[in-house]
Amino acid sequence: METTQAAPDVLRSTCQSREVLDLIADKWTVLVLCALEGDRLRFTDLRRRIDGVSPKVLTHTLRAMERNGVVTRTVLATVPPHVDYELTPLGLTLQASVNCLRRWAEAHMEDVRAAQAAYDASTSG
Amino acid sequence: METTQAAPDVLRSTCQSREVLDLIADKWTVLVLCALEGDRLRFTDLRRRIDGVSPKVLTHTLRAMERNGVVTRTVLATVPPHVDYELTPLGLTLQASVNCLRRWAEAHMEDVRAAQAAYDASTSG
Repeated sequence: METTQAAPDVLRSTCQSREVLDLIADKWTVLVLCALEGDRLRFTDLRRRIDGVSPKVLTHTLRAMERNGVVTRTVLATVPPHVDYELTPLGLTLQASVNCLRRWAEAHMEDVRAAQAAYDASTSG
Repeated sequence: METTQAAPDVLRSTCQSREVLDLIADKWTVLVLCALEGDRLRFTDLRRRIDGVSPKVLTHTLRAMERNGVVTRTVLATVPPHVDYELTPLGLTLQASVNCLRRWAEAHMEDVRAAQAAYDASTSG
């Protein structure tokens, strides 16, 4: 049980922020947030932008993000009907945080590769 | 195959940054980075600090982080011997990025909870 006085802390397993971290520390969620930067996209466009995602995983990820309040899903009454996704104001705040991770991955991929090679050489020798 | 000219982009499945993102967009990796903030800790202390983590998951997470160059593992020749973990300089740069996610989870847990309740009410009605 949480007391109402305790400050949020992801290191505490009973804190709701731990559960929220679990929802957002996910590769596909991060990639959807990156792909929706400044855009409102149809499912097929989103799928094309996130190279390599399967329709099943993308559907599952979008549904969870909609439930968590970071994405809105709009069904347009066109012929044929189509569905648009965009970030909510809450999703925009998360996107800013997620961009830190994206930038790190893009800036340090060579450092990680070098570390893996050194580790593998030291453990196989 | 990547061309050497292409800028890193996590949205491209063949870019190495996608693989790196997959390594770091993980709840337990994020929690270890938070727990090691400013500290060098033994396994048992780390386990205590990350409330709820199993020894098996913590061992697996630390080994991956060591291989990826973000954590160092030091075996001390004490009686009994013990093992310390701390962040590398590369790990310190990642910690700064991961703190964005942590702060978001802690700041917005009530927003996410409210969104989930609204979603569940609308889909069950």
